[in-house]
Order: sequence, then C-alpha cells, then structure tokens
Amino acid sequence: MNKIIIIDCLQYSKWTRKIFQQMNDGGVHAVHVTISYHETFREMVHNLEQWNRWFEEYSELIFLGKTSNDILRARKENKTAIFFGFQNPSPIEEDLGLIEICYSLGIRFMQLSYNNQSLFASGCYEKNDRGITRFGQQLISEMNRLGIVIDMSHSGEQSTLEAIEISTKPIAITHANPSWWHSALRNKSDTVLKKLANSKGMLGFSLYPHHLHKGSDCSINSFCRMIVEAASRYGIDCLGIGSDLCQDQDDSIVEWMRNGRWTKVIDFGEGSVDGPGFPDQPKWFCDNRDFENIKKGLISAGFTEVDVAAVMGGNWLRFFEESFGQ
Amino acid sequence: MNKIIIIDCLQYSKWTRKIFQQMNDGGVHAVHVTISYHETFREMVHNLEQWNRWFEEYSELIFLGKTSNDILRARKENKTAIFFGFQNPSPIEEDLGLIEICYSLGIRFMQLSYNNQSLFASGCYEKNDRGITRFGQQLISEMNRLGIVIDMSHSGEQSTLEAIEISTKPIAITHANPSWWHSALRNKSDTVLKKLANSKGMLGFSLYPHHLHKGSDCSINSFCRMIVEAASRYGIDCLGIGSDLCQDQDDSIVEWMRNGRWTKVIDFGEGSVDGPGFPDQPKWFCDNRDFENIKKGLISAGFTEVDVAAVMGGNWLRFFEESFGQ
Repeated sequence: MNKIIIIDCLQYSKWTRKIFQQMNDGGVHAVHVTISYHETFREMVHNLEQWNRWFEEYSELIFLGKTSNDILRARKENKTAIFFGFQNPSPIEEDLGLIEICYSLGIRFMQLSYNNQSLFASGCYEKNDRGITRFGQQLISEMNRLGIVIDMSHSGEQSTLEAIEISTKPIAITHANPSWWHSALRNKSDTVLKKLANSKGMLGFSLYPHHLHKGSDCSINSFCRMIVEAASRYGIDCLGIGSDLCQDQDDSIVEWMRNGRWTKVIDFGEGSVDGPGFPDQPKWFCDNRDFENIKKGLISAGFTEVDVAAVMGGNWLRFFEESFGQ
Repeated sequence: MNKIIIIDCLQYSKWTRKIFQQMNDGGVHAVHVTISYHETFREMVHNLEQWNRWFEEYSELIFLGKTSNDILRARKENKTAIFFGFQNPSPIEEDLGLIEICYSLGIRFMQLSYNNQSLFASGCYEKNDRGITRFGQQLISEMNRLGIVIDMSHSGEQSTLEAIEISTKPIAITHANPSWWHSALRNKSDTVLKKLANSKGMLGFSLYPHHLHKGSDCSINSFCRMIVEAASRYGIDCLGIGSDLCQDQDDSIVEWMRNGRWTKVIDFGEGSVDGPGFPDQPKWFCDNRDFENIKKGLISAGFTEVDVAAVMGGNWLRFFEESFGQ
C-alpha cells in the first residue's frame, strides 16, 4: 500500500517548509493549491512570484506540476508536484485573452465562480442561479482548448449542470461532498453528482469541517462509509480527495475568502457570528501525514486495496493525464 | 546555400499575414520580435495576448520559440519560430519577481535600458552613464539564472561594458553597427565590440537606415564590406543579423518608441524636425525576402559560403542554444 499515488486536489495552507516536509512525510505526490480568491490579474501574478521563490528555496521538496508525468516524476524523486488553480475567476478580469496567459503561467484549474455570481457563472450562495453566461461560454471554450479544468466546487446547481453540458471535456468538483450525507450549500446534489459521473468528471471529497457530517466531530468511519456509498451510487472511477485543508491559516484569511472586497457587511459564509474563524479539523485529518488514516479507514469501511489506490490518487492521475496530457 | 539557417535577431513590424508569409518565402527560421517599448507589465501582457491570437490564426506560418531546437523544428516544418523580447525593461516595473514571470510567458531577450536611464542601466542618449545600478545587478543575476539574454543595443557605453563584466553568461547587442563604419549614438565603439567578442557575446548587424553609412542610400556593398571588416577585427563567431526591420509601421509608432510617456517635449531620437518619421529602407532590404540579397552581397565582399551561413544564422543558433538550451 505504501507505493500508491496520493493526490490531494485542493489545499490552501499557510505554506512553510514544515508543510512541504509533511507532504513529503505523508508521501503526497501532487497537490492542487489555490493561487487566488479575489485577486486581480496583477495581484495574482504577485502570488505566483511568491511560489517561484518557494520552488527555489524548497527545491528538494516541491516543484511546479503541469502534466500527469510530473506526478510520476514526483513519486520517482520523492517530491510533491504542485498544481496551480484559482478558486475564483477574478484574475481573468474582463479579458478572455488572460486565460491563455494564465495557462502559460502554469494554471491548470479554475472555478467559474466562488459563492457569488461571477461574470461567467452563478455561485452556490446566490438566490437565483442564471446559469452559464455568454462570456462564460467563451471562457469554457478557451479552457477546453488550452487544457484548464473547469472546477464548479463553489458554483450553483444550474450553472454546474450547464457547465457539464457545455464543456467538451470532463469537469471537476475538486472539493465538496454529497448533500445526501451532509446538507450544506457547498455540498452537491445527487443530480449533479450523477451527471458529473456520467460525463467522466471527478469529485474530490472535502475534509473541511463545514462540509462534514457533524462538522469537526465527524468520525473517520462516517466519512469513509460515505465514500463507499458514493462509489456504489456513481461508480468508483469519478472519486478522489480534495481535502480543502487550510492549515496554519490566520482567521483573517477565511474572512478574505468570504468577503474579498465585495461587501462592507461581514459575510460569515459557512461560519457564524459565534464561530467566524476556521473550524477545527477532525482529529484524524490535521495535515498531510494523515492520508494514512483515510487509507486505513477505507479498508475498514469495505474497500479493497485496489479501490483505495483509485480514490487516493489513481483516479486523479488518470484525470490529470486526460486533462493536461502526459 | 538554400538550406542554411536564417535568423533575424530583431524586428518590430506591423504584423500581418503578409509579413509572416514573407518570412516563410524568405526562408527565415527565427525572428526575435519586440513585445514592448514603454509598456507596464499589464500592458505588455495585452501585447502577448495579441501574439497568442496570431499564433492560433497563422499556425501554418509561425509558432512561439523558446529553445534552439524550436529553430530546427521551424526549418523542418517550413515555419518561423518567433522569439519574444523587450526593448526596454519597463514591464519589470519595480518588481524583480516579474522577470521570472516574463520568462514563463516566453520572454527570452531584454534590454536593460532604451536610450534613457532605466532602473537598471543608462541609455545611449543620456549625457552621463552611471553604469549598472544596484537593482540592475540583481536583475542580471536573475536573467542569468533563468536564461534571458541581456541585450544592450540601446544602452550607454559604460553600462554595456559593466553588463559584460557582471553577467556570468555572454550578452548580446541584437541590433547595432560599429561606430567606426557609421558614427551614431546607437552604434557601438570598437572597445565595446572587442569586449563583447572576447566574452563570447553576439552583435546583430542593423539595417535601420539611421545606423547605416549614408542612411537610406547605403549600398549593399558598403554594408557587406563592413561585415567582412568586422569579422577580421572581432572574429566571425560573434556576428549575426538583427535587422531592426520596422515594416509597414505608421509614424506614430516611432514617436511612441522615442517618447513613450516620459516627455511632453517631442524627442526626435535619431530623426529630426524635418524627418520625424520612419526613414526609407535601403532598396536592397525592404522585407524578409531580401536576406537573399545580403547572402549574395557577402559572397561578393569576399565571404565563403561557410562564413555566410555563420553570419546569416549559424552563430545565433549556437548562441540561442547556449542561452536557452536545446
């Protein structure tokens, strides 16, 4: 079991050597990291500059991943391939040409909206979901041409269904759970997940407490039984992990994620006035060394070793190859 | 003689299908094109977006070149590899990290200054050349690390000598001529050219009339005899072509090149009140099909076919491989 590929398709931590070392200790071969939430193009570029410094400074632990072969290289060299993504399309501003520029800079995932209405799609917190916009259709076409994955994790139901329909390539919901397990605006309906699976898309299971049954107190048994149930409903091929791990972040960061510069009235998102900050992680998943717990939990819940390998990274590896090439 | 590699290490034309077709007709395998003069980073990105559209639209004629093998690919596929460069470092703004971002976007050449003092070096039109600045030293170090060629075509003498000294990799003067042939602020002294050659740098001979003996009336014989003389002074290995061809451009463009946004008083640069626009090209070099004339002219001036192949592209090919890898 030690040699299986492990891919986490969403993390946004306060990056330090400690965390990159934990990825290494946990045998994590690839992580999709968030580059921006509400940044303009120029501000996003500044975030990439910071990553360039980390790639130089921690070159024995991490490198920029662009294709599926980079994940195999990571396994061979005992490193972690970092794949870039935007949670929100704000860096595209109102300029379609910026999507190819972002691709050249290494971006491989982009959400079409983040909770709110964007220029391209509606968000899961909007009352009315107007679906994919005219500009959104042009953007999807370019993302398909270039090989940037359309991620609908924070988008509304109608927009998500339309994105699956319009996109000529499979899309992803990199970090969310089924709403039949835990009802939340951010979790996804059975309708969406069936359509996602039928179109060869991917779902990454989230470990962010607000997406978990019983939140921070969610048991690993409940989480893993949910995955086994999802495999029986949708087939195992469309399932992976997208932990949404936000390790060591200050609470000001979750406030930025939720409020950006779009509101003067504080929006608590999935939190509340009494619990405005980051929730505590469940004890069995606190950092990159804890994928081991999930592997064991899945076996206990009834998965074979082959099933575990598929969900822990094998399915994402196939999807990365189909999306980005070798 | 038809199969030799032809590389032009500087053009800034009003790009159209016609011009790309002329590159093809002229058998030009690689062209270093100017992406920006006075643009901010964000404005420069907009210029790259325009190039992305041309690469899509004219994919049977051109593609983005990044390494020396792209030139061999261009010869094989009967296309032209386009290499990106900045004439002025304005897109770096005051942010060292932007140089690596620009590298990721395909930039392979950058001048440290354009006629005026920059944050990095002095320009050939400044009265006092203070040499390479503190920021300039950091920039040169990053350009060396990444593999972006330091181009001193429009820089001052002292700055150029210091750049050669400081840079750990050979630099280039992509488009200028020796001042012993035609005295002009933009042409280069024997001292500079000797030091350039001794450090394995490269000089691209310019065909811009203000850099030519007798300007637009310069004879091909005079131009080619100058090259033969340069080969005897500096050795042939450091010599190539950087035509500075500005085909089909409106005169407003040369005004932008000279004045950017830095002056309210019109600066005529190499022109004059009576001749403020682009000068006429010599009749024997008007577009990309006219490299044939130079090949013949060099033979008439005494070069062997091997010498011609070296100056027309062989030397640049070697320099591109050393600078950018295969």
